Amino acid sequence: MTLPSRPLVIAVIGGSNADEEALSLAYQVGAELAKRGALLVCGGLGGVMEAACKGAKAHGGTTVRILPGSDPVEANPYVDIPICTGIGHVRNIIVVRSGRAVIAIDGAYGTLSEIAHALGDGIPVVGLKTWEFSTHGRQPVGALIPASGLVDAVEKAIAAAQERAVKPSPLAKPL
Amino acid sequence: MTLPSRPLVIAVIGGSNADEEALSLAYQVGAELAKRGALLVCGGLGGVMEAACKGAKAHGGTTVRILPGSDPVEANPYVDIPICTGIGHVRNIIVVRSGRAVIAIDGAYGTLSEIAHALGDGIPVVGLKTWEFSTHGRQPVGALIPASGLVDAVEKAIAAAQERAVKPSPLAKPL
Amino acid sequence: MTLPSRPLVIAVIGGSNADEEALSLAYQVGAELAKRGALLVCGGLGGVMEAACKGAKAHGGTTVRILPGSDPVEANPYVDIPICTGIGHVRNIIVVRSGRAVIAIDGAYGTLSEIAHALGDGIPVVGLKTWEFSTHGRQPVGALIPASGLVDAVEKAIAAAQERAVKPSPLAKPL
Amino acid sequence: MTLPSRPLVIAVIGGSNADEEALSLAYQVGAELAKRGALLVCGGLGGVMEAACKGAKAHGGTTVRILPGSDPVEANPYVDIPICTGIGHVRNIIVVRSGRAVIAIDGAYGTLSEIAHALGDGIPVVGLKTWEFSTHGRQPVGALIPASGLVDAVEKAIAAAQERAVKPSPLAKPL
Repeated sequence: MTLPSRPLVIAVIGGSNADEEALSLAYQVGAELAKRGALLVCGGLGGVMEAACKGAKAHGGTTVRILPGSDPVEANPYVDIPICTGIGHVRNIIVVRSGRAVIAIDGAYGTLSEIAHALGDGIPVVGLKTWEFSTHGRQPVGALIPASGLVDAVEKAIAAAQERAVKPSPLAKPL
Repeated sequence: MTLPSRPLVIAVIGGSNADEEALSLAYQVGAELAKRGALLVCGGLGGVMEAACKGAKAHGGTTVRILPGSDPVEANPYVDIPICTGIGHVRNIIVVRSGRAVIAIDGAYGTLSEIAHALGDGIPVVGLKTWEFSTHGRQPVGALIPASGLVDAVEKAIAAAQERAVKPSPLAKPL
Repeated sequence: MTLPSRPLVIAVIGGSNADEEALSLAYQVGAELAKRGALLVCGGLGGVMEAACKGAKAHGGTTVRILPGSDPVEANPYVDIPICTGIGHVRNIIVVRSGRAVIAIDGAYGTLSEIAHALGDGIPVVGLKTWEFSTHGRQPVGALIPASGLVDAVEKAIAAAQERAVKPSPLAKPL
Repeated sequence: MTLPSRPLVIAVIGGSNADEEALSLAYQVGAELAKRGALLVCGGLGGVMEAACKGAKAHGGTTVRILPGSDPVEANPYVDIPICTGIGHVRNIIVVRSGRAVIAIDGAYGTLSEIAHALGDGIPVVGLKTWEFSTHGRQPVGALIPASGLVDAVEKAIAAAQERAVKPSPLAKPL
């Protein structure tokens, strides 16, 4: 396993229960991130997270997992570096904060909470077949970045992460 | 300040920046909760949270606030019991978990994350002029309970909280 | 249950497994706090915490419990206001931060971590038959306040809490 | 930067303010961990943490840092993988949980809280010129492992981590 120095960290979020289409998307997103030298951070124990890690590992990438529990054995076999939080779903927030950008694929309420935390903190989120939302009477500031497909999603996430590394987001603490 | 023994705890969530309509709704929601003997728990430092506490206090209610910082002085003057977490926005999750039901009024991304955490944990959420959302290709399980107005919202939240006290939610750990 | 407005909050910490002597001390500490109008906040699920709550309730006091899990039913029957964190032992930090002063009775490593968090945050801690510690080659700043007995402990905790309410600690963020 | 697959993770804890002796020890501990292929995880922003990372990087090691804030730029320049928690000192617990074993060097109350969390969770801790503690009337279970010097500390930590990887600690949830 080889890492560039100070690799660009991209978070991939999505449900632990996912259908074949979402799993296939996640695998390919992991693969495309690895090909571009990005480090993949994720949080869950299966589903989209496992598929993305598998795709990354099959293409020479490195993966970090922010686990809900205290035991590194929980991590799926495609994880290089397990971080054990022991704080349950609260670790969702740490997953998105550790990414310079986020790619959301499918997902249940845990994913929606992660998207909301990221956008609230000014972290760019690219969406792939995931949640749609609007607030009563106002368009939300800093909404999901749409993507036409998985390669577009990966490229937009990396571009947003690089831009953010250069200048801090104006949305640093907007909640 | 008088409390019934083991009071029914209802969380009120919403943005710290809110317009007059939302503030007025929040004040009245706090008042109606107090009239019904519910204990109000909230999280923020102003806006909807302050208005709801103010309404509750003006009607003999008791308020608990889960603060993001470490200093009880942060709490607005209408708070009886400040809980100091020092964990920032992460305390959002503790706010909703401490309610037997949640009333969401207006709000920004912090409120969306709280709604998602609550629904993910199977905690009933009644919505008033707040976020709308749907997931790609699937209706979400256990969505927001709609309310026709503020009294309806308070009554539905209390009914859901009482029902939940009797039988645990089937959605106990669905994320 | 009646509460003074903005009551003085005192945290009581100690082990969930405790011997008779510690349980008796904890009960009496809870009772003395209640007689002085202090609100008792604690964190565990039994042992010292339950005994202190029981003593407080038997003397007209109010108790708040910061629970490790997500279900208010976990709280012992002497708790008025359960706060559900769902973050496990991490809630220890919230317990001590919510007290204007802390009384530590007996306890295992969880209690030692709470003492260390409190002293690190500049929160005064009175010790009763609890941990003793020293750092290699240096005396620690802001160590445990010794007490000659339980009434002395309660009075010293309340005095320290009142003093802290007036002027912020110079040790606000010393870790 | 090259990593073995599933590297052994060792946490190094200690104060952000440290004297020359502690900094030198920390540098050498980082170096010895790197020579043995261990991945170093730490938490702070300077002092012992920075020195240990510097020692590891100078000897080909990889470092992960669990940051208290939300901005990866906080990390010292010797960090490869920044994890942004945004939960302040609470991230101390994640640091020790992510290590299969812990080496404590010097340190203030933050370090004492980390030692207590680790021992309470059954995670082995080797101490170098750090805290000493005892509980009233009882010897604590699973105390600090003493070390005769830095190489001994590194070897004992690695041995304890390897042993723990084979059989789970009997102290899994002892608090």
